[in-house]
Amino acid sequence: MYQIGIVKRNIARADRAAVDRLAAYGVATVHEAMGRVGLMKPYMRPIYPGVQIAGSAVTVLLQPGDNWMLHVAAEQLREGDIVIAACTAENDDGFFGDLLATSYRARGAAGLVIEAGVRDVKVLTEMGFPVWSKAVSAKGTVKATLGSVNIPLVCAGALVHPGDAIVADDDGVVVVPAAMVGKVADAAAAREANESEKRAKLATGVLGLDMYKMREPLEKAGLKYID
Amino acid sequence: MYQIGIVKRNIARADRAAVDRLAAYGVATVHEAMGRVGLMKPYMRPIYPGVQIAGSAVTVLLQPGDNWMLHVAAEQLREGDIVIAACTAENDDGFFGDLLATSYRARGAAGLVIEAGVRDVKVLTEMGFPVWSKAVSAKGTVKATLGSVNIPLVCAGALVHPGDAIVADDDGVVVVPAAMVGKVADAAAAREANESEKRAKLATGVLGLDMYKMREPLEKAGLKYID
Amino acid sequence: MYQIGIVKRNIARADRAAVDRLAAYGVATVHEAMGRVGLMKPYMRPIYPGVQIAGSAVTVLLQPGDNWMLHVAAEQLREGDIVIAACTAENDDGFFGDLLATSYRARGAAGLVIEAGVRDVKVLTEMGFPVWSKAVSAKGTVKATLGSVNIPLVCAGALVHPGDAIVADDDGVVVVPAAMVGKVADAAAAREANESEKRAKLATGVLGLDMYKMREPLEKAGLKYID
Amino acid sequence: MYQIGIVKRNIARADRAAVDRLAAYGVATVHEAMGRVGLMKPYMRPIYPGVQIAGSAVTVLLQPGDNWMLHVAAEQLREGDIVIAACTAENDDGFFGDLLATSYRARGAAGLVIEAGVRDVKVLTEMGFPVWSKAVSAKGTVKATLGSVNIPLVCAGALVHPGDAIVADDDGVVVVPAAMVGKVADAAAAREANESEKRAKLATGVLGLDMYKMREPLEKAGLKYID
Amino acid sequence: MYQIGIVKRNIARADRAAVDRLAAYGVATVHEAMGRVGLMKPYMRPIYPGVQIAGSAVTVLLQPGDNWMLHVAAEQLREGDIVIAACTAENDDGFFGDLLATSYRARGAAGLVIEAGVRDVKVLTEMGFPVWSKAVSAKGTVKATLGSVNIPLVCAGALVHPGDAIVADDDGVVVVPAAMVGKVADAAAAREANESEKRAKLATGVLGLDMYKMREPLEKAGLKYID
Amino acid sequence: MYQIGIVKRNIARADRAAVDRLAAYGVATVHEAMGRVGLMKPYMRPIYPGVQIAGSAVTVLLQPGDNWMLHVAAEQLREGDIVIAACTAENDDGFFGDLLATSYRARGAAGLVIEAGVRDVKVLTEMGFPVWSKAVSAKGTVKATLGSVNIPLVCAGALVHPGDAIVADDDGVVVVPAAMVGKVADAAAAREANESEKRAKLATGVLGLDMYKMREPLEKAGLKYID
Repeated sequence: MYQIGIVKRNIARADRAAVDRLAAYGVATVHEAMGRVGLMKPYMRPIYPGVQIAGSAVTVLLQPGDNWMLHVAAEQLREGDIVIAACTAENDDGFFGDLLATSYRARGAAGLVIEAGVRDVKVLTEMGFPVWSKAVSAKGTVKATLGSVNIPLVCAGALVHPGDAIVADDDGVVVVPAAMVGKVADAAAAREANESEKRAKLATGVLGLDMYKMREPLEKAGLKYID
Repeated sequence: MYQIGIVKRNIARADRAAVDRLAAYGVATVHEAMGRVGLMKPYMRPIYPGVQIAGSAVTVLLQPGDNWMLHVAAEQLREGDIVIAACTAENDDGFFGDLLATSYRARGAAGLVIEAGVRDVKVLTEMGFPVWSKAVSAKGTVKATLGSVNIPLVCAGALVHPGDAIVADDDGVVVVPAAMVGKVADAAAAREANESEKRAKLATGVLGLDMYKMREPLEKAGLKYID
Repeated sequence: MYQIGIVKRNIARADRAAVDRLAAYGVATVHEAMGRVGLMKPYMRPIYPGVQIAGSAVTVLLQPGDNWMLHVAAEQLREGDIVIAACTAENDDGFFGDLLATSYRARGAAGLVIEAGVRDVKVLTEMGFPVWSKAVSAKGTVKATLGSVNIPLVCAGALVHPGDAIVADDDGVVVVPAAMVGKVADAAAAREANESEKRAKLATGVLGLDMYKMREPLEKAGLKYID
Repeated sequence: MYQIGIVKRNIARADRAAVDRLAAYGVATVHEAMGRVGLMKPYMRPIYPGVQIAGSAVTVLLQPGDNWMLHVAAEQLREGDIVIAACTAENDDGFFGDLLATSYRARGAAGLVIEAGVRDVKVLTEMGFPVWSKAVSAKGTVKATLGSVNIPLVCAGALVHPGDAIVADDDGVVVVPAAMVGKVADAAAAREANESEKRAKLATGVLGLDMYKMREPLEKAGLKYID
Repeated sequence: MYQIGIVKRNIARADRAAVDRLAAYGVATVHEAMGRVGLMKPYMRPIYPGVQIAGSAVTVLLQPGDNWMLHVAAEQLREGDIVIAACTAENDDGFFGDLLATSYRARGAAGLVIEAGVRDVKVLTEMGFPVWSKAVSAKGTVKATLGSVNIPLVCAGALVHPGDAIVADDDGVVVVPAAMVGKVADAAAAREANESEKRAKLATGVLGLDMYKMREPLEKAGLKYID
Repeated sequence: MYQIGIVKRNIARADRAAVDRLAAYGVATVHEAMGRVGLMKPYMRPIYPGVQIAGSAVTVLLQPGDNWMLHVAAEQLREGDIVIAACTAENDDGFFGDLLATSYRARGAAGLVIEAGVRDVKVLTEMGFPVWSKAVSAKGTVKATLGSVNIPLVCAGALVHPGDAIVADDDGVVVVPAAMVGKVADAAAAREANESEKRAKLATGVLGLDMYKMREPLEKAGLKYID
C-alpha cells in the first residue's frame, strides 16, 4: 500500500560498478539473465530511438494532473540515477518537460521512465535527455496534491524499489533488484558470450534447428514435413 | 450541429504576423499561455519528427472512407494555411497521400492535421510535407458523399473555427481562436522569457524547490522527509 | 482451419521478376492496383522508417509465448523470401530478435512481418533487417508447442498463402496472391504512370477539382458555396 | 477556447415539450433526423442497459482528478436536465458516485454523460440513475482546481452548448442544438412513421432490395450474381 | 484477394443436423475439439448476454460507412443462417439496426456476426435477435459502393468460407469448415462427456493435480514447495 | 523480482473477521479509507454485474498461454480465498473456465481476479462464480511451463502479497495489506457512517456546496458567477 506524503532521503543504491556492467547489455539480455522476469509493460516507449542506459532508481509517485513530486525528487538525485515515475491513476498529461530535464541533468540524472505523458519532446531530443513514457502530451499539470518520493511502487506493471537497477533501451525497460545486480550482470555476460558464438555460426548459414539440436524434440512433438 | 454540403469561401484568418510570432513557440508554451486549454487529444501524432509549424485553419468535414472534400478544400487554400480535417465517424483510412500533398503545397498549405489516416508516408517525409494524424493506413477512399469545408468542427476533441490559428509540433496540436492570437503570442513570449531565466538557473543546479519557493507549501501540505 | 504440426517444404513462389517489379511501387499503389483489397490492419508498423521491400511469403503459425516455429521456418527460406508470422492468440511477446535475424539473413530472407512482438530493435536497425510488427517487447519466449510452417493463415486480418507476394513499406503491408502478381504489377505500373502526370499538373497549381472533373458531380450532389 | 473559472447561471434551455417528444425516439433515429451528425464517440457507454432519456444540457468542464465543478453544477440543475461533463485532459478517475447522484436526483437531474470515469455503479444501478461514461473506476478525486459550468464544450467529440437537447440510450449519446429541437423532433417523427411501415413489410419477408428499389442501382454499379 | 462486386447464390452449407449438434456445445468446447483453432479475436462481443447459437455462414464484405451489401445479403438467407460481415477497413459505424434485423429474421437468419458497429441495441435485445460485434454505434451508413456476398473472407482474424458452420456464445465466435462439422461435433461430444465426469469429481474436492496426474511432470519441471 | 517455480504453502491470511467487515463496503469506500491507494487498473471488469466479495489473496503467476499454475493453486485454497492471477506477459487467452471454477468452489474459493482472459462465461454466470478479468476469450491454454503460487506479484498495476485482503465489486478491485485490514475496516465504517448522514441531507435538496462549505474556497480560487 502506497504511503502518501513521504520523501525518503537515504536509499541503498545498486552497486555502481555492477550497474555500469549491466549498461553494456540490452534490456532483452538482462531480462533473460534474470529468468525472464522484471520487464515493464511494452507500452513504455522511448521518445527517440537509439539510446541504452542503466542507473539506480529514484522513485516518484504522482497524483493525476499534478507534477509537484517531480520537483521534490530533483533534490534526491545523484549522478547516474534514473527517475521512475508512476501515477495513482491512469493519466497521460505532460508531467515532464525541458525545464525539469535541465534540472535533472544538472543533478546528474541519466534519464526518466514515466508511466504517464511527457512534453517538449523536440527539445528533450536535442538535449539528448532520454525518456521512456506511455504517452506524449503537451497538457500542463498543477502542483497541489502530495505524492511520495523513494517509496516502493509499481510502474507499468513492474515493482520498483528505490535503488534498484534500471536498464532501458529501444526494447523497453527492465528492473533488477539492487541486491542482484552483480549476479545478473554475470549471467548477462555469460549469455552474451554464448550468443556471440551462436551469432557467428548462424551468420554462416548454420540452422538453429541443428545448432540447438531441435530436430529430435520437434519430431517427438509430432512435427510432420510434407511436400 | 454540422452543416453538410457547404463550402465557405471567405473566412477571417488570424492575423498573419501574430501567427508567425506563435510559430516561434512550441505547442506546450502556447497551450500554457492560453490557460492550459485548446489542445487536441494526444493520439494525434506527427508522421515524422522535428517539425514545428503555425498557420490558419481551413477546416474539412469528411465522411468515412471518402476523401472528396479534401479535393474541394484545395481551392480554398492560401499561403500558410493548415488544413484541419475531421470525419463524421471513427475511420482510419488513408484519406491523404502524395498527390493531395503536391496540390496542397502548390496552393500554399503549410501542413495537414487529420483525425483519421494518411498514406504515402515515405514520400511525404521526403517532400517535407508535415502531417499530424491518428493513424497511418494505405487504405484508399472513394469520392461519393458530401461533407463540408470551412465550417466550425471538432477535431480530436478540440473545437476549430475556420481561420483559427493552429500550432503543431512533436508534442501535438493546439488551437488558438483567431481573435486571441495576438494576446496569446504576447503571453507566450512573456512565458518564454521567464522560462529562459529559469532554465539558466536550473542548469547550474539550483532546485525548483527553492526557485519556485515550494518548500513551505509542501510542508504545509504535510510532506515528511525520512531517512 | 489451421493444421497444427505441419511444415510444407515445396511451395509455389510468386514469379520473382514480377515480384521485383512490385518492389518499385509502394503499398498504397499496389493495394489500389488490386482494387483496394489485400491490406493488413494498420496496427502493423515498421520498427524503423524508410524501407520498402517485396518478396514471397513463407508463413509461420506460432503459439502464444512460443517461437519454436520461427526456428523451423529458417530451413525453408530462399533468397528474397519474407516471413509472415501469425499467432493462434493475441500475444505481444518478443518472438524474434537479432539471432534469428542473423540466421534469416544468412538464409536469404528480406524481412519479417509478425502479428506479435519483436525485440533487439536497436540491433535490427543497425543490421538493416526490416520488421513490421504489432508491438515491440523484450519478453522472451519458450520452445514447447508446435505450430506450422507454410500453411495458409490470417495475419493482421489478411489471408496469406505460402508463396504469395508481400509488399511492405512505411504505410503497412499488402498481400498479392501469387497467381496475380504479374497482372497487379502491370496495373500498378499503369497507375503510377498516370499519377506522375497528375502529380506534375497538381504541382503547377492545377486543382484536382478541375483535373478530375469533380465540379459537376459535386454540384449534382448538392454542394453549396457560400461567402 | 475554454473559459476557466466561470459558472453561467441563466441558460436558454431547449423547449421542454419538444425535448419530451425527442425522448420517444432513440439516438439512432434522432441522429438520422439531423442529417447524420451530432453523435458522441462510441466509447461512451451506459453503466447499465435499457434506459432511454432526453433532457437539456448543463455542461461541466473538469480538471483531471478533480470533481469540484460537479458539486458546483448541482446548484444550476433544473427538472429534467442532463449533466454533460468533459475534462481538460484524458482521465478515467471516478469523478461521480452515489452521493452526487443523490444530490443530482434531488435537484431534478435525469442523468449524467461524462467523458471520464464513474464509480458506485452497483448503487447507481439500484437507484436507477443513468450514466453514460468512458470508464468505470473507483479512483477518488480531489477538489482543488477550477473548471467551469455552463460553457460550450466538447464532450466525446461532440460540441455541446448549455441548454442543448441531449438524447441517450443503449446506442450512445446525441446532441441537438436547442434551436433545432422542434424541427428535429418533427423529422424524427416522420422518419419513425416511415420506418414502421417498412418494418411491417420487411417482417412479411419483402426484401429491402425490392422495397428500396435497389436492384437497378446495384446492377448499374456493376454487381454480378454468380452460381 | 477479395473479389468486389460479386454475389454467389449457391453455396454448400454445412450439414444442418451436424450443425444442430454443434449448437449444444459452447464456443470453447468446439474450439478445443478442433485442436484449438478457428476462433475470432476476443474483441467480438455479444450485444446482450446468455445466447448460444450455431448456423451456416452467409458472408458479406462491406465498404467503410456503407451497408448496401447487408441488404443484398438478405435475399441469400435460408433458415438457420448466420450472417458474417467484415469491412475492407477498420470502421465502427452502425451498419445494422432493427429494420435489417426484422428482414433477416423474416428470411430465417439466426443472428449476425459483424466486425464493425451495430445500432438499435435496445430493440434488438427486445426482439431477441443476437449480434456479435466490435462496437455499438448509432452512426448511420450510406448505400453507394459495392462489396460482395458469399465470398471467402477474414472476419476478426478468422477465415470464413460461405457455408462454414459458426458457433457463437458469451465467449465469442468460432468457425468450423463445412466439411469438418460432423467430425468436430463428434469430438466435441467426446470432450463434453469426458468433462462431465471430471466436473463431478472436481465438485467433490478431488484436485486436478491428482485427476490429471500433474504431480510428477510438475516435479520434473522443477516445481518446489516451500513453507 | 519474481521467483519462478515456487509454491508457498503457509501464508499469513488477513484476519477473517476483519475481512468480513470489509465485505460490507464497496471498493470505492475501501480505497478511500486507505487514503486513495490500492486499486487495480480500471480495465479489470466483472464478467457479470452485481457481485461484491472480500477474501484473502492466493496469488498465481502464469506464463503466457499456459494455465498449469491455476491447477497447482487449487490445492492451496481455503474457505473464502480469492485467487489473484497475473501473467509474465500480456496475454488474453482463456486461462480459466467452468472445470477450474468447479474445483475452486469445492475448495472454498470465493472468486477469481485474473489479469488475462477467462472462458465459459455463461456457465460461470449460472454457477454464480464471480471473476474479474481483462478479457473474455475461448482460447485454450497448455500446461508446459512453470510459474509460481503465493509469491508477491503485481496484478493490473497493484502489488499483492499472498494473504492480503481483496475487495471486488462492479467498480473494480482493491488490495488491502493483511496487516492493515482491521484499521481500514474501521476507517471504512467511519466513512460510511459519515456518508449516510450526507446522503440523507443531499436527498432533501441540500447542496454539497453548502454541506461541504465549498463556497468560500471556490470564491477564493476565483470562481465567477455570470448571468
